Amino acid sequence: MFLLNSHKSGRHFLQIPGPTNVPDRVLRAIDNVTIDHRGPEFAVIGKAVLAGMKKVFKTESHVVIYPASGTGAWEAALVNTLSPGDLVLMAETGHFATLWKKMADKLGLKVEFLPGDWRHGANPAQIEARLACDKEHQIKAVCVVHNETSTGVTSRIADVRRAIDKAGHPALFMVDTISSLASIDYRHDEWGVDVTVSGSQKGLMLPPGLSFNAVSEKALAASKTARLPRSYWDWQEMIAINSTGYFPYTPATNLLYGLHEALEMLFEEGLDAVFMRHQRHAEATRRAVRAWGMEILCKNPDEYSSVLTAVMMPNGHDADAFRKIVLKNFNMSLGQGLTKLSGKIFRIGHLGDFNDLTLCGTLAGVEMGLSLAGVPHRKGGVQAAMDYLAESAAKEVTASIHAEPSLIT
Amino acid sequence: MFLLNSHKSGRHFLQIPGPTNVPDRVLRAIDNVTIDHRGPEFAVIGKAVLAGMKKVFKTESHVVIYPASGTGAWEAALVNTLSPGDLVLMAETGHFATLWKKMADKLGLKVEFLPGDWRHGANPAQIEARLACDKEHQIKAVCVVHNETSTGVTSRIADVRRAIDKAGHPALFMVDTISSLASIDYRHDEWGVDVTVSGSQKGLMLPPGLSFNAVSEKALAASKTARLPRSYWDWQEMIAINSTGYFPYTPATNLLYGLHEALEMLFEEGLDAVFMRHQRHAEATRRAVRAWGMEILCKNPDEYSSVLTAVMMPNGHDADAFRKIVLKNFNMSLGQGLTKLSGKIFRIGHLGDFNDLTLCGTLAGVEMGLSLAGVPHRKGGVQAAMDYLAESAAKEVTASIHAEPSLIT
Amino acid sequence: MFLLNSHKSGRHFLQIPGPTNVPDRVLRAIDNVTIDHRGPEFAVIGKAVLAGMKKVFKTESHVVIYPASGTGAWEAALVNTLSPGDLVLMAETGHFATLWKKMADKLGLKVEFLPGDWRHGANPAQIEARLACDKEHQIKAVCVVHNETSTGVTSRIADVRRAIDKAGHPALFMVDTISSLASIDYRHDEWGVDVTVSGSQKGLMLPPGLSFNAVSEKALAASKTARLPRSYWDWQEMIAINSTGYFPYTPATNLLYGLHEALEMLFEEGLDAVFMRHQRHAEATRRAVRAWGMEILCKNPDEYSSVLTAVMMPNGHDADAFRKIVLKNFNMSLGQGLTKLSGKIFRIGHLGDFNDLTLCGTLAGVEMGLSLAGVPHRKGGVQAAMDYLAESAAKEVTASIHAEPSLIT
Amino acid sequence: MFLLNSHKSGRHFLQIPGPTNVPDRVLRAIDNVTIDHRGPEFAVIGKAVLAGMKKVFKTESHVVIYPASGTGAWEAALVNTLSPGDLVLMAETGHFATLWKKMADKLGLKVEFLPGDWRHGANPAQIEARLACDKEHQIKAVCVVHNETSTGVTSRIADVRRAIDKAGHPALFMVDTISSLASIDYRHDEWGVDVTVSGSQKGLMLPPGLSFNAVSEKALAASKTARLPRSYWDWQEMIAINSTGYFPYTPATNLLYGLHEALEMLFEEGLDAVFMRHQRHAEATRRAVRAWGMEILCKNPDEYSSVLTAVMMPNGHDADAFRKIVLKNFNMSLGQGLTKLSGKIFRIGHLGDFNDLTLCGTLAGVEMGLSLAGVPHRKGGVQAAMDYLAESAAKEVTASIHAEPSLIT
Repeated sequence: MFLLNSHKSGRHFLQIPGPTNVPDRVLRAIDNVTIDHRGPEFAVIGKAVLAGMKKVFKTESHVVIYPASGTGAWEAALVNTLSPGDLVLMAETGHFATLWKKMADKLGLKVEFLPGDWRHGANPAQIEARLACDKEHQIKAVCVVHNETSTGVTSRIADVRRAIDKAGHPALFMVDTISSLASIDYRHDEWGVDVTVSGSQKGLMLPPGLSFNAVSEKALAASKTARLPRSYWDWQEMIAINSTGYFPYTPATNLLYGLHEALEMLFEEGLDAVFMRHQRHAEATRRAVRAWGMEILCKNPDEYSSVLTAVMMPNGHDADAFRKIVLKNFNMSLGQGLTKLSGKIFRIGHLGDFNDLTLCGTLAGVEMGLSLAGVPHRKGGVQAAMDYLAESAAKEVTASIHAEPSLIT
Repeated sequence: MFLLNSHKSGRHFLQIPGPTNVPDRVLRAIDNVTIDHRGPEFAVIGKAVLAGMKKVFKTESHVVIYPASGTGAWEAALVNTLSPGDLVLMAETGHFATLWKKMADKLGLKVEFLPGDWRHGANPAQIEARLACDKEHQIKAVCVVHNETSTGVTSRIADVRRAIDKAGHPALFMVDTISSLASIDYRHDEWGVDVTVSGSQKGLMLPPGLSFNAVSEKALAASKTARLPRSYWDWQEMIAINSTGYFPYTPATNLLYGLHEALEMLFEEGLDAVFMRHQRHAEATRRAVRAWGMEILCKNPDEYSSVLTAVMMPNGHDADAFRKIVLKNFNMSLGQGLTKLSGKIFRIGHLGDFNDLTLCGTLAGVEMGLSLAGVPHRKGGVQAAMDYLAESAAKEVTASIHAEPSLIT
Repeated sequence: MFLLNSHKSGRHFLQIPGPTNVPDRVLRAIDNVTIDHRGPEFAVIGKAVLAGMKKVFKTESHVVIYPASGTGAWEAALVNTLSPGDLVLMAETGHFATLWKKMADKLGLKVEFLPGDWRHGANPAQIEARLACDKEHQIKAVCVVHNETSTGVTSRIADVRRAIDKAGHPALFMVDTISSLASIDYRHDEWGVDVTVSGSQKGLMLPPGLSFNAVSEKALAASKTARLPRSYWDWQEMIAINSTGYFPYTPATNLLYGLHEALEMLFEEGLDAVFMRHQRHAEATRRAVRAWGMEILCKNPDEYSSVLTAVMMPNGHDADAFRKIVLKNFNMSLGQGLTKLSGKIFRIGHLGDFNDLTLCGTLAGVEMGLSLAGVPHRKGGVQAAMDYLAESAAKEVTASIHAEPSLIT
Repeated sequence: MFLLNSHKSGRHFLQIPGPTNVPDRVLRAIDNVTIDHRGPEFAVIGKAVLAGMKKVFKTESHVVIYPASGTGAWEAALVNTLSPGDLVLMAETGHFATLWKKMADKLGLKVEFLPGDWRHGANPAQIEARLACDKEHQIKAVCVVHNETSTGVTSRIADVRRAIDKAGHPALFMVDTISSLASIDYRHDEWGVDVTVSGSQKGLMLPPGLSFNAVSEKALAASKTARLPRSYWDWQEMIAINSTGYFPYTPATNLLYGLHEALEMLFEEGLDAVFMRHQRHAEATRRAVRAWGMEILCKNPDEYSSVLTAVMMPNGHDADAFRKIVLKNFNMSLGQGLTKLSGKIFRIGHLGDFNDLTLCGTLAGVEMGLSLAGVPHRKGGVQAAMDYLAESAAKEVTASIHAEPSLIT
C-alpha cells in the first residue's frame, strides 16, 4: 500500500513556501468518491467553486479553473491574449519571473526584461518610464509577479497599475499571484488587472494540480484576436460552458472538492483575518531573523512578503547543507535558494494552514539547525518571535474579557 | 464541510465509461499529506510511478506525466511533434476522434479526416490506401483513437501499424488510449506507436487530473525540429529532469500518490488478468443487451470494446429520459450519447475497479430502468449475464478444487 | 502500512447481517483528529449524539452509550437492574437469545428459558401464561431479542408488552435491538420497554465498538437497589455526567464522530423511509428465495425480518461450502448458520447502507453461487426480485412525474 | 456532514496526556471498510495484533484485547482474579489510583489504600512492610499505577516486585500502564506482573476504544476459582478463541486496523528508540519549567514521568483560567488538575506521535500563555529546551557524518 516514508515520529513541518500543509478537512474532502462530471450534483459544485474563486480574486468578471499546475496558468495567460512576435514587458524580480520570461520566449513572444537585483519588487517608476517611451504601443502586455516566491519580495501591484495609467498605455496588465492569493490582499478588479494567474498549492491550502486565470473583459476581448495557437487553455469555450457549472473537458473532480472545502475555510475565517494572520506571522519571523543577527533578502520593508521570508546565509556557509541538517534532525523542509541564490539563502514558508505554535516550532527548528550546522548567529530568535506573538495576542485577550461570556464556541 | 449530495442510501453506481469508481485504496493514498516535491522522499515516488507507467504502456522509451486532463495530453502529442500547417491524417471513429481533430485545427495543423459511421473502428485498408497515395510524404502523422469512448468501438492498432508499414510511409503514429489503457491490451513498443496519449480516470482507477504521453525515440527526435510553440507540454525538459525522479514544475503530488497505489493494484492482479476480467464483463454485458432484444452500436465483433457497451435506443424513445429515470430510481449514472448520437444511445461503463456482482447490479439497474421508462425490451438480460458469469467462473472452481488447499489468502 | 487483503477487483459485498457496509461519510467522520474529551468542542458532540439516539430509540428518558460491543450492553442491562439469584424469563428465539441467557447464568442470575424452535419469535401467549402463574412476582425481568440475527425472525415486541400487561406483572421488560435498531420500527417509550440494548454495527452503519442502553425511569429506579456488582456499566454516574455532554471515563471519541454522521444520514433520509426501504428489500429477497424453490427459515410471515433472510439448504448440501464458493468467486460474505443451524442455513444481510442495485448484485451472487456449488434450485430469483423492485419503484416514478420539475436536488 | 469546529487556522495542539495526537497513518488505517469478523481476512489481522501486543507488553503469556476504554480493562483485571470480599492492597499515587480503588469498592472488594501525597510514586518499602505483616496472606492482590497520569509520577514497578518478593507474599501483582505502555519501558514478564492493564489512546497513538490485559499464567489460574461475576470481561473464552485469530463477540474491527498500523510504526522506530525519544522530550520540558522558575509536581527525579509533566501554579493563580487562555489564543489543549489538584496544576503531555518541533511549539504556547495570563515566571523556558534538544541532537549529527553517505532514505 502507498506509504509515505514516515518512520520519524510526529508530523513533518512542510515549511517551504508551497506546497503548503494541506488541512485535514481539505484532504478528507478530496477523499470523496469521484462523481459523473456531467451529472446534476457536479454542476452545484462547479458553480460554487467558480463563484468562490471570484470572491478570492475580488473580481466580478471571469475565473477559469484548469486541471494543471500554476505553470499552465502562466501559459494560458499568454496564449489567450497575445500573437506571435508580440512585445511583452516583464520585471525581473527573481527566479519565477525569469521562468515566466523564458516561457514567453519559447512561445514566440519578444520579451523586454526589466533587470532587477532579486531583492526588490517590480519598479513602478521604471515601468512607467519604459511605457512612456513606447509611443507606438508596441508593448502588448506588462507582466509582474505579485509575490516572488524565490525571494520573499512582494511587488506593489496597485503602484504598477498607477504607473501604467500615468503612462497612458493600453497594454494588458498580467499578474502572477501563485504564492500570494488567499494569503496577501489582492484585488483583481480594483487594481485593473487583466489576467491574474494563480495556483492551488499555496494560500488555497490544496495539493498542487489546479490553476487559475482571472480574466477582465478587456483580456477576454483581446483573446478574440490573439493568434498564438491554443486549445487546452482556450478561455472562450471554458467560460461559455462554466456558466452551467460544467467544464468542456474532464475537470479534476476531486481537487475541486478540496477547493470547495478550502473556500469554506477561508470564508469562515474571513479573508481579512487571513491576511492579518499572515502579516503577523511574517513580522514574528522577521523579528526572529534579526535577533539571530541574520539578514533578510528583501531590502524594502514595504515589499516584505507575508508568506515567506528568505534569509541570507553568512559567507562561507552553505544554505543547502544547513537545510539538510534541519530535515534530518528536525523533520522540517525549508525552501532552497534557486539558481543564482543557490546555497546562499534559505526560505521559511509561513503561509496557508498555519498558527502561532506551528510558527514557533518552525523557528525553533531553524534556530536549532543553525547551531547544529555551526552557522554564526545569536540565540533569541524564537524568544523575539514569542514576545511579539504574545504581545499581539494580548490585545485580543484584553478585548475579549469585556466582550465574551464564555470560551465555548 | 464538503458534502456530496448523498441523501440516497447505499453507494452510487458510477457506470459511465470514466471517470470510473475510484477504489478506497487509491482515495486513501491521495489523502496523504503533501510533501516537498524537491525533497528526497519525492524522488522515490517519482521514479516509481514513471517506471510503473512504462510497464503499463509496454514501452522502454519515455513516459511523460502531466498535471492535466487527457485533453492536455492530446495537445502535448501534437505540439511536441508538429509544425504549423503540417498535414495530419485522422480517422473519424466518433465524438472523441472529432474533438481531437478540432484541436488539431485550432492549433494550426491541416487535418484530413477519414470519414466513419461511428459504428466501426479506424479502417486500416483506408489508411494504407491514403498513405500509399502520399508519395511526397506530406502527411506527418496518423492519429487514431484506440478505444472510442463515445461508441464502444476499439480500433485495431496493430493492423493500422501494418497498414502504415505496407504503405512504407514515415509518418508518426499517434494513438489515444485514454479509455483503454490498463483495461485493454496495449503495446506501445511492439506496435510501433510514436506517441501514446492517456489519462488517469479510466482503467488507471484514479480521479481525473493526470495525463500521459508515451514517446518513442522517433517522436522525441521529431520534437527537436517541430515548430509549434510549446512550453508547459514540452517533452525535452520534462524527460531530462524525470531521470532524477523530479519534475520541472510542481507536479500533482497527491494524484501521484494515487497513481503509485493504482499501479500496485494493477500489478498485484496482473495486467493480463485485468484484461481478461474486462473482456469477460464486456461479453456478459453484450449477452444481456442481446437478451433484451436491443442493438449494440458497434457493428464489428472484432472491434467490441472491453470497457463500455453502447446500446441503441428503439426509435421513438429518448435515451436521456431513460438515463434520468435510472439515476433517480437506482442511483446509477450511465453514459449519454454524444453529439450526433445524443438521445439515441446510452453507454454502460464496465471498466476499472469492478467485479461480477457490481456488474449484475449495473445490468439490473438498466433492465429495471427500461421497464420504468416503458422502453420495449424482453426480460432476461441479467439472467443471460449471470449464466455466462457463472459458467465462466465454474471453470475456475473446477480447476481450484485440485489446486488449492484453503480459501484463506 | 495497514492493508486489507484486497487483491480482488471491485468492492467486497459484506452481506452478513452485521457488521454492515459502513458508508464513506461515516468512515471519513471517524477519520477526524481525536480531540480533548474534556474540552468545549467535545460537549457539543456529546450532547448531539445523546439527543439523536433518543430520537432513534423513540424515548424521552435516558440513553447510555458505552465504548463496548453489543455484548457489553447486554451485560449493562442485567447488572444495573438485577441482584444475585434473581429470576429472569427469557425467550429462546435463536443463537443470540441463547448467548444472552448464558451470560445471565454466568452473572449469577436464575434464568427460565422459554423453549423455541428457532423459526418463530418470542411467543406472547406463552409469556403471558408464565407470568400469570407467577403470583409472587419472583420473575424480575422479561428479556426478548427483537430481531434474532441468527434466524431472521423478528419478535412482536408490542404484543409481548400487552402480554405482560394482561398478566398484570411488574417485571422489567428488556429488549435486544442490536440488529433491528434504525432498520425496523422500534418504540422504547410507546411499547413500555424498560431497557433496550443496541449496538453500532448494524442499522446505525458504524463499525463495531459502541453499544447502547435506553433506560426507563422504572429501570433507573431499579438500579438503585440492584445488587449485582458493577462499575464500568453503572448507569448512575454515566447519566449524571452525560447531561453536560461529557462522560465519566474516556469515550470512544472517533466512533462518536461516526455516530454523529450516521445520525445525520438517518434523519436526512427519515426514519420511516429507512424502515420502508428495509421492508422493500426484504420482500424482494424473499421473492428471490421462493423463486429459487428454497425455504425461508422464518415460519411466520408476521415475523419476517426486514434486515436479514435466513435460507435453508436442501438436505445433503453444506451451507458453509456454498458460502466459501461465493466468497471465493464473487467476493461476497454471507452469514453462516450458528450452532445448531451450522451448515444448514445461510443468511443474507440486506440492511444498513444499501440500495436496489446492491441488493440485485447480492442476490445474483447467491444465485450464481448456488449454481457453482451444485445446490438444487430453480433460476429466476434475481428476476423475481427485479420485478418487485421495478414495480414498487414504478409507483414513485408515476407520482414524481406530477410533482417534480427537475432531477437536480 | 460531521465537522469538527475547526475555524482556527492550523492544527490543534492536543497536549493533554492522552488521548494523544493520532498519526494520519493510524487514522487512515481505521478508515478502511469494515470486514466480516468471522472471515479469513480477519484472522490474519487478529493474530497479528495479538502477537504485536505481546511484544509491546514484553510478555510471552497472554494478551486480551477489549472493545472498551481503559476503565474496562481495570474492571477486567479485578473481576477475573478476585472474589467478593477479597482484600486488595492499592497505592494512592493520585487521581487515577483513587478511581481504581473506588471501582474495587463498588465491585465488592475490600481495599486497603496506602496513602500518598500525589507527588511520589508507590512506595516499595511501605508495600513490603505491609505485606510482611500479612502472615495469613489475606491480601490477594497488590495494585499499582505505573504512570500516574494525574501527577506525572512514574512508580518503580521493578522495585515493587522486589518488595513483594522480599516479603515472600503470594499476592497477585497488577499494574496499570494505561499512560505508560509504548512510551516508557515496561516488562510484564521480567517484572513478574500478573495482570497489566492498558489502553489505546496514549502511547499506542490510537483513538480511545480499545483496552488490554496482559495476563500471567498465575493470574489465569486464579481466574478459574475467582468468584466475582463476569461475562463480557471473562478471559477464558477470549483466550481460547484468540488462538485462531478470532474473538468471542464482535471486536472493534476498525480500531484493530489502527492498532495494526500503530504497532508497525512502533516497531519501525524501535521500542527502545521510542522510550529514548520520550525521555529526551521530558527532560527538555523539565528544563523549560525550571527556567520559568516554576515547580514540577513530581518530587523524586527517579520518578519523573517521560510522558507528561505536571507543573504547579503559583499561589493565587488559577491553572484552569490559564489553560483557557492557552486554548483560546494558541489552539492548544493542556491537561487540567484533577480533584484535589484542581486549579493548582496544569499538565503538559509530551507523548505519542510527537517530535522536537512540536514540543517547541507546545512549550512556546505555555510560555506565551503564562505571559497572557499574568502568571509570574521568567522567560527562557523554550530557549532552555531548545538548548538541550540541539545539544542532544548534535551527538547524532556528529555520529552520522561518519556513518551515512546520503540523507536520502
